[in-house]
Amino acid sequence: MKVVLIGSGSVATHLGLALQTKGVIISQVYSRNALNAKTLADKLNTSFITDISEINKDADIYFYALTDTAFKSLLRKIEMPEGIQVHTAGCIPMNEFEGFTSKYGVFYPLQTFSKNKPVDFSQIPICIEASNIEVQQQLLEIGKLISEKTYLVNSEHRKKLHLAAVFACNFTNYMYDVASEILEDSGFLFEIIQPLIAETAEKTKIMNPFEAQTGPAVRMDEKTISRHLIMLNKRTEFKKIYKLLTKGIYNRHKKQ
Amino acid sequence: MKVVLIGSGSVATHLGLALQTKGVIISQVYSRNALNAKTLADKLNTSFITDISEINKDADIYFYALTDTAFKSLLRKIEMPEGIQVHTAGCIPMNEFEGFTSKYGVFYPLQTFSKNKPVDFSQIPICIEASNIEVQQQLLEIGKLISEKTYLVNSEHRKKLHLAAVFACNFTNYMYDVASEILEDSGFLFEIIQPLIAETAEKTKIMNPFEAQTGPAVRMDEKTISRHLIMLNKRTEFKKIYKLLTKGIYNRHKKQ
Repeated sequence: MKVVLIGSGSVATHLGLALQTKGVIISQVYSRNALNAKTLADKLNTSFITDISEINKDADIYFYALTDTAFKSLLRKIEMPEGIQVHTAGCIPMNEFEGFTSKYGVFYPLQTFSKNKPVDFSQIPICIEASNIEVQQQLLEIGKLISEKTYLVNSEHRKKLHLAAVFACNFTNYMYDVASEILEDSGFLFEIIQPLIAETAEKTKIMNPFEAQTGPAVRMDEKTISRHLIMLNKRTEFKKIYKLLTKGIYNRHKKQ
Repeated sequence: MKVVLIGSGSVATHLGLALQTKGVIISQVYSRNALNAKTLADKLNTSFITDISEINKDADIYFYALTDTAFKSLLRKIEMPEGIQVHTAGCIPMNEFEGFTSKYGVFYPLQTFSKNKPVDFSQIPICIEASNIEVQQQLLEIGKLISEKTYLVNSEHRKKLHLAAVFACNFTNYMYDVASEILEDSGFLFEIIQPLIAETAEKTKIMNPFEAQTGPAVRMDEKTISRHLIMLNKRTEFKKIYKLLTKGIYNRHKKQ
């Protein structure tokens, strides 16, 4: 199996590495940015291009790991080869490929990637959607090659998944970031809070987040809440967040 | 060493179990709620009381693991024995004990506890504060007995720590909870998002949350953001949260 990676960000990087480990040939990397293209191509010991017209025509699958905007702009320029065209995005509908080719799909790994942090791809849910049953079969095969968890998910459901991921990952990480700013203000190292972060995540393996909820908001400890708001007095943005999330937790638990 | 646990919630439970494992004698459990008191006393194979006047007078340390309100109300009723009096709360100043006794302090484990989930106490940061150096020495000793991480933290700093913990734990868990509601609406099981939650937490061990930030807000992917807001149309509360946190992430990364 031979693939081309279109994009050189963290998804392209980790996907490329995972595929290569399983014996898939990464025949080429494309990126508008020559440095990024070269960096990834070097990692994968393959060649790179920055001009899409030079794309290899003989790959089995072309993975588009691009932002929404870069993807759309590339679609207008690329002359699509014979192989299967798939994008890896949570929030782009599959039918964006419609009219360009008949063999296309989506291969969405539900995970957060940073270039320099290795990931265990075998545990990453891969959400697959395809334009026809043959393509679906091929995407499932390649999905199962690198992960123990493949799912068939249509565009409508995938975008919900992506939305849930924004809360569970991006917003969660921002909560860590706010905590790190508060700690820094008081001279604490971030590490003091790491066991708490680990345990909070760990808990979701044995109970649902509704049951796992702790803290002043769920027990409506108004005294603590008002102390916290006083402490946040100069951080207007954090104060707004504190109030809104406290209200959210309260409403959620009051209802039940 | 002999201790009395005042309170029967999750902190009292896990602290009691950790101390007992290290050979500390739990001589008694007090709670206003007889059922909770009995449940914990049974777990620790000790006796319980629901009337504070029956408290054992000969313990070395009395741990108050109570909510703010319950703590204040107990202070008005209890006749304090000779031993050291410590509370375990993040947000209650140490000097609440002032005037009641001279040997007091704080023993705050920076962790989230749920009764039925075992925890590894050895990795939990214990924040200690004491009314005098002898008490401090004794609290450090008992802290080191159950944890590898003891810190001396005064009331002013401890409340900052507690505030950071609300973001890193309580609000984070609420983000998981919102994600679980979105998933449920679309018929997904929560487990599909667990690898993402685990990795998001895991990342903080090797990079700071600022560097680890991913998602539409940090790359200002307005198209995805507006798609998400449309999806959240009927969930007014989630939409407000989405907007506020997206703005927070954007401002944080724009500044740098």
